[in-house]
Amino acid sequence: MKTIGIVDTTFARVAMGSIAQSTLRSTGGNFRTVRRTVPGIKDLPAAVVQLFRQGADLVMALGMPGKADYDRTCAHEASQGLISAAVQEGRPVIEVFVFEGEARSDKELKLLVRHRTEEHAWNAYRILFHPADLTRSAGTGARQGFADAGPAGSPSRKRGFRNGIAKYA
Amino acid sequence: MKTIGIVDTTFARVAMGSIAQSTLRSTGGNFRTVRRTVPGIKDLPAAVVQLFRQGADLVMALGMPGKADYDRTCAHEASQGLISAAVQEGRPVIEVFVFEGEARSDKELKLLVRHRTEEHAWNAYRILFHPADLTRSAGTGARQGFADAGPAGSPSRKRGFRNGIAKYA
Amino acid sequence: MKTIGIVDTTFARVAMGSIAQSTLRSTGGNFRTVRRTVPGIKDLPAAVVQLFRQGADLVMALGMPGKADYDRTCAHEASQGLISAAVQEGRPVIEVFVFEGEARSDKELKLLVRHRTEEHAWNAYRILFHPADLTRSAGTGARQGFADAGPAGSPSRKRGFRNGIAKYA
Amino acid sequence: MKTIGIVDTTFARVAMGSIAQSTLRSTGGNFRTVRRTVPGIKDLPAAVVQLFRQGADLVMALGMPGKADYDRTCAHEASQGLISAAVQEGRPVIEVFVFEGEARSDKELKLLVRHRTEEHAWNAYRILFHPADLTRSAGTGARQGFADAGPAGSPSRKRGFRNGIAKYA
Amino acid sequence: MKTIGIVDTTFARVAMGSIAQSTLRSTGGNFRTVRRTVPGIKDLPAAVVQLFRQGADLVMALGMPGKADYDRTCAHEASQGLISAAVQEGRPVIEVFVFEGEARSDKELKLLVRHRTEEHAWNAYRILFHPADLTRSAGTGARQGFADAGPAGSPSRKRGFRNGIAKYA
Repeated sequence: MKTIGIVDTTFARVAMGSIAQSTLRSTGGNFRTVRRTVPGIKDLPAAVVQLFRQGADLVMALGMPGKADYDRTCAHEASQGLISAAVQEGRPVIEVFVFEGEARSDKELKLLVRHRTEEHAWNAYRILFHPADLTRSAGTGARQGFADAGPAGSPSRKRGFRNGIAKYA
Repeated sequence: MKTIGIVDTTFARVAMGSIAQSTLRSTGGNFRTVRRTVPGIKDLPAAVVQLFRQGADLVMALGMPGKADYDRTCAHEASQGLISAAVQEGRPVIEVFVFEGEARSDKELKLLVRHRTEEHAWNAYRILFHPADLTRSAGTGARQGFADAGPAGSPSRKRGFRNGIAKYA
Repeated sequence: MKTIGIVDTTFARVAMGSIAQSTLRSTGGNFRTVRRTVPGIKDLPAAVVQLFRQGADLVMALGMPGKADYDRTCAHEASQGLISAAVQEGRPVIEVFVFEGEARSDKELKLLVRHRTEEHAWNAYRILFHPADLTRSAGTGARQGFADAGPAGSPSRKRGFRNGIAKYA
Repeated sequence: MKTIGIVDTTFARVAMGSIAQSTLRSTGGNFRTVRRTVPGIKDLPAAVVQLFRQGADLVMALGMPGKADYDRTCAHEASQGLISAAVQEGRPVIEVFVFEGEARSDKELKLLVRHRTEEHAWNAYRILFHPADLTRSAGTGARQGFADAGPAGSPSRKRGFRNGIAKYA
Repeated sequence: MKTIGIVDTTFARVAMGSIAQSTLRSTGGNFRTVRRTVPGIKDLPAAVVQLFRQGADLVMALGMPGKADYDRTCAHEASQGLISAAVQEGRPVIEVFVFEGEARSDKELKLLVRHRTEEHAWNAYRILFHPADLTRSAGTGARQGFADAGPAGSPSRKRGFRNGIAKYA
């Protein structure tokens, strides 16, 4: 049976790991999940490596960088660390980062976190169990958390949450 | 028989992997291709390592970063990850990135993606099967997707698509 | 028995390693600590690797970058090195950095250093001995050294030291 | 017999690998050279690793980044990749980069490329065969492609090509 | 017997390796030194790895980046390479960089280089032979080349060379 690791942070202002875990369960796939929580996004890469060494086939790494310039630097360092971990271990790491500055209110922030985490969890599931689905969607301008951009040449869409904010608000 | 890996993304707005695959087939070379699709450019490095471990001799990594500042940061992180993967595995990774901001319209974007991907696919083929052809072209100012710059001291050329936009439009 | 490594610097203007060590002792946990001091923050990553190779299960890396632009570059390089060390060794490194520019006076600086170091030391302890406590705190907007941000949607709090400056001043 | 690897690019507008090769031959040293050409500077690090694994004792990596901001990012990524390759393999990589913006005309560009490549080729030779010569030159303010800066405290020299442009023009 | 490696550059305008070597000798410690010289700071990381593989227990890496923006990029790349080398090998690398722009004249530059190199050489010696001395100095605001900043809360000191410029001028 395959294993999906999930790591989130206490720094984040939404419990992203719980959303990832319940979304993964809703896929009905035959896998188990292992969840860890670390203090901040810079702690994610080491936790990812530990989960791989405990048998994870893929790890979702979830975090919420703050608004300051320094937070952007930390996010950059964390992202590079996650990619290094993935390259070293030769297995996929799905980074799910939501920057506080991406939303205008706490309500919108929670919606954005939920949508992006759900869509990335479905991607994690597809990578392990239905890779051909991803290939069929190659070049379709998929976006996580916002409306898809669509393939080049398709009628333009307005930017917004996939199912409309109304759904959750 | 040699193997060429191809990885593209669902984030891209053109199915770059299909273009790479059909161009590689058109070379008539004796090799097989393996194709994967991942969500975004940051997922490319791990997929590249996995393809190498499954026997690929070279991997083409294709993606389309967006227009925002943050997209440039992601592209930088992805590029560094691709180079790390290539250094760790000691095998070539051909990065084919087209930034949305490089073209003024969807039509031009599709043309640019096609030209650049085709030319990089030919380069991938040459690296594996005709390395001496590349050495003969050393220092000739070759460009992928736009007109070649030419060697220093040669008459200047105007910047544009290699065969003219008319060819495809 | 588990081992927690502690590395600090002579460059820092507060003896951060002593604070970390006494806080760790105050947890009452069953572990030993090993302490090293290096000249500056760029020397931390190698010391971290050495402590891991001497058996440490987790290392706290403590430093105080200065105020100049160049100090920010050094902090960035040191942070990336600490993440590389953690990824290479597959074990957690708790970075505790306090920038001189974060506080307005030496008095405030000392308070900030004390609070942040204490909270990170408790995190180090939880990672090794009570990981479920961290998972229970996932997404709660925890901050080290300043008041917690709280979960999204909770009443806003004013930014300040956790227990008020008065406690220490 | 020692082996020196040479990798250059088709992107460059001067055949830098040929200059390196003929300069190395002119040293009269007892070594063989192996030359490869890759499309662009980001392809250099993987080629360097391959040459090391084929027995090279040192590799010269030659390239000409363009004038745009993005080219500077690519050069930075390529440089970091070359250093990673050198650190991973524990053998020297001599980076020879000439930015198009460093010269005011194609004629000057070709001169600069020639001088810098020649001087770096001599350095490569000294590293392998006469390391004591380099130690004797420690701290002398040597520059490749332009006039040497000289040791601190020596009479100032005017910036220009080492032997004057007239020599080649 | 322990071994300390020393690597400097021909690019530097002061023979930093000689200063490091004579300072190390003046400690009276029971160790041998091995010295190498490379062309520029980007060549330091590979030389460091080679010295480690030849038995060095610690390596001092000395260089003088120039004044231009590009020199800062090179210094950043070199620093990251030195940290990577230290992490990969699990042994300390003491980086001693003096930027030309740090001093206002060649005379001041030579003084600064001498002071910083001497103080880093003493640190190298302490790391290997008297680590407890460093721990006793933790958090004391030590600076190399300029006056120490002192611990937070201590009377402020004026910025300057440790023993005053007069000593050497």
